[in-house]
Amino acid sequence: MDALARIERVLSEALAEAGAPGAPPRLAAAMHHAVFPRGARLRSRLCLAVAWACGEDDPEAADAAASAIELLHCASLVHDDLPCFDNAEMRRGRPSVHRAFGEPLAVLAGDALIVLAFQVLAKGASRRPERLPELLRIVAGAVGAPHGIAAGQAWECEPEADLSVYQQSKTGALFAAATAAGAAACGQNGDAWRLFGERLGEAYQVADDIADVLSNSGEIGKPTGQDVALERPNAALQLGVRTALERLDRLAADAVAAIPPCRGANELRALTMQETRRLLPKEFARQAA
Amino acid sequence: MDALARIERVLSEALAEAGAPGAPPRLAAAMHHAVFPRGARLRSRLCLAVAWACGEDDPEAADAAASAIELLHCASLVHDDLPCFDNAEMRRGRPSVHRAFGEPLAVLAGDALIVLAFQVLAKGASRRPERLPELLRIVAGAVGAPHGIAAGQAWECEPEADLSVYQQSKTGALFAAATAAGAAACGQNGDAWRLFGERLGEAYQVADDIADVLSNSGEIGKPTGQDVALERPNAALQLGVRTALERLDRLAADAVAAIPPCRGANELRALTMQETRRLLPKEFARQAA
Repeated sequence: MDALARIERVLSEALAEAGAPGAPPRLAAAMHHAVFPRGARLRSRLCLAVAWACGEDDPEAADAAASAIELLHCASLVHDDLPCFDNAEMRRGRPSVHRAFGEPLAVLAGDALIVLAFQVLAKGASRRPERLPELLRIVAGAVGAPHGIAAGQAWECEPEADLSVYQQSKTGALFAAATAAGAAACGQNGDAWRLFGERLGEAYQVADDIADVLSNSGEIGKPTGQDVALERPNAALQLGVRTALERLDRLAADAVAAIPPCRGANELRALTMQETRRLLPKEFARQAA
Repeated sequence: MDALARIERVLSEALAEAGAPGAPPRLAAAMHHAVFPRGARLRSRLCLAVAWACGEDDPEAADAAASAIELLHCASLVHDDLPCFDNAEMRRGRPSVHRAFGEPLAVLAGDALIVLAFQVLAKGASRRPERLPELLRIVAGAVGAPHGIAAGQAWECEPEADLSVYQQSKTGALFAAATAAGAAACGQNGDAWRLFGERLGEAYQVADDIADVLSNSGEIGKPTGQDVALERPNAALQLGVRTALERLDRLAADAVAAIPPCRGANELRALTMQETRRLLPKEFARQAA
């Protein structure tokens, strides 16, 4: 089964359990709306790619880690979209959760998805529980305080913030957790894989900045030009698109160089170069090719 | 060290880690505001009382379970108080988190406290990781969907809701998790302890209803008379205070009867009767005595 099919299967099962008979139906629907139809599943596919490169001796644990990371990503999008933050109307080409279900259910769906991530992790890693504390440490560290997504988002509420700290927490942390958790799910040293994930997170951030400046919103399913509108820092605006593109290529090369020795290193290198280009809006990727 | 001191120590350490240098200071302050100064710590003390009655062979795991439950309770209060739910201005005699820090930081502080709960659990139970999957299952099940706090709160967003299902999810689930986790932290069958927790949760709900009708807000640190104002169901309003008090006594007796055989059963029975009376507002408890 390919990586995406594995992730979708675990996510579907998890959402079905959360929405089992007896659950409040609108909460279940809001949680489902936040996770399906899928986005690119970048972080979870990255997690499985690392697990595969590490020789994957426990696919169930790897699937659980990847899916937990995806659920946490989805939860963060639901809360980021809330009126008190980005007040986003659209996400993945459809109304955001709070537009479709109201603000209370958006808050609760985000909360319940965070919890669901840990439920998935606990269940999937139960065959080798000795790996669970480390997996939890990695995954939880990427979304809480002091250095996870919530902390990253909270820098928007401080009078002063260091841009790289902000981006590392808000975006980089979950990419780093995806690579670290992929290795830890195989009983290997997760920390050795963090730099690979961090570089990919930076590359993703630059690609997202380029997309925000160039793309039409139809292609990526959310409004573009938001960074100008919300006065957010944007590498493509600050450096120009051509220089931002060079930076993207350099980050991809740095990421590849950061892959630790492992069984599937060659394949992972090739996949990384290919996927990094796919981060760009389709039209632009063709132009730039 | 007494139970309360153990809980406060673990909570203090956890909050210090979440607010370590490098954390966004206002998020760290908002998280601290949500957890300190303490409320009654009912659920976490209950967890430790059960662990003690079960012979507590791993105090660190019990402390972690108790503290995780308290953090999840605090997180739920922060989100419940948000403008889109109760829009509460006060909590524990001070401004609620969103009044003190703004709505964005209240959302994020709640999120980060949920995550912190799982970090605390993972760390505290790492010496006996084979107990961790069950502890996670118990604790996460009490706060997510389909039957945890988020689900309970979500019933407020449904056109129709069964009152007992609503209360069981919103209040009973975490009490049941507190007792189950106390036993599971000692490697014992958590599910055998659920009924004891459920009955105590119902008793707490009735006592809270009585307090809402009778107390002055100075004593309990939050506005009273909210159930009438927000048109929420309230046993003391529906049954009358005298009948509600009889129901409280019956629930306490039912709880005591539900304590499974264990080393410290006698002490736990006595403690339960004593603590149930303490749930009532002080003045009223004197009157009713």
